[in-house]
Amino acid sequence: MAGAIANDLEEGFAFTPRFSADGLITCIAVEAGSGEVLMLAHMNAEALEKTLATGVMHYWSRSRRKLWRKGDTSGQIQTVVELRVDCDQDALLARVTVGGDGGACHTGRRSCFYRRIESGGDGARLATVERV
Amino acid sequence: MAGAIANDLEEGFAFTPRFSADGLITCIAVEAGSGEVLMLAHMNAEALEKTLATGVMHYWSRSRRKLWRKGDTSGQIQTVVELRVDCDQDALLARVTVGGDGGACHTGRRSCFYRRIESGGDGARLATVERV
Repeated sequence: MAGAIANDLEEGFAFTPRFSADGLITCIAVEAGSGEVLMLAHMNAEALEKTLATGVMHYWSRSRRKLWRKGDTSGQIQTVVELRVDCDQDALLARVTVGGDGGACHTGRRSCFYRRIESGGDGARLATVERV
Repeated sequence: MAGAIANDLEEGFAFTPRFSADGLITCIAVEAGSGEVLMLAHMNAEALEKTLATGVMHYWSRSRRKLWRKGDTSGQIQTVVELRVDCDQDALLARVTVGGDGGACHTGRRSCFYRRIESGGDGARLATVERV
């Protein structure tokens, strides 16, 4: 990247989100109060636009190939407290409050990151993380 | 996804990371003590393998197209405290301690997420987040 462009992207105040070749940008959602990472998902331009316009998190479902207002069926609506962008503007971080039972994962857990990876001599296995 | 396969993926203890079509998996790095989100980056299979083998975060640099041990030039080595995987095993969450000056962003900030998005009637702009 040329220096001047990188500088605008990283130090400027124009919001110029960089979508990937498939038109998506990655978004991390964290619980605003605790900072706990709840989930990682993707937005297309429309999902981002609707999120900014409504203050409610919208995503693009890659598996279902459709726009998705998180919580529409589960009640786990995510209300934006703050939306951040990273240095090179290809990732978002959303601080949210969560409606319904406060969870984010479709399995019923609070966070999607409920298993840790344990690696040993015979390869890697998963184990349950307490309190998610 | 067929039910039985989804169940193994989500409820099982086999680590079967799902790399994207371009061979990458997304990884969120958070500071282990505070839980602060530091950065989002990608790993290919080799980066993940080296991370598991050494306990030090390795990434794949998409811009430089090379394996990258974070901190090799900056001293900001990220030591793994815990590595987690999400429900459908296509994203990782790394809890790390950071060497050097404790930062993670190449701009010199602690976190890459140092600007918040402010949306108004005339579009979205960025503003500096205090204390990052």
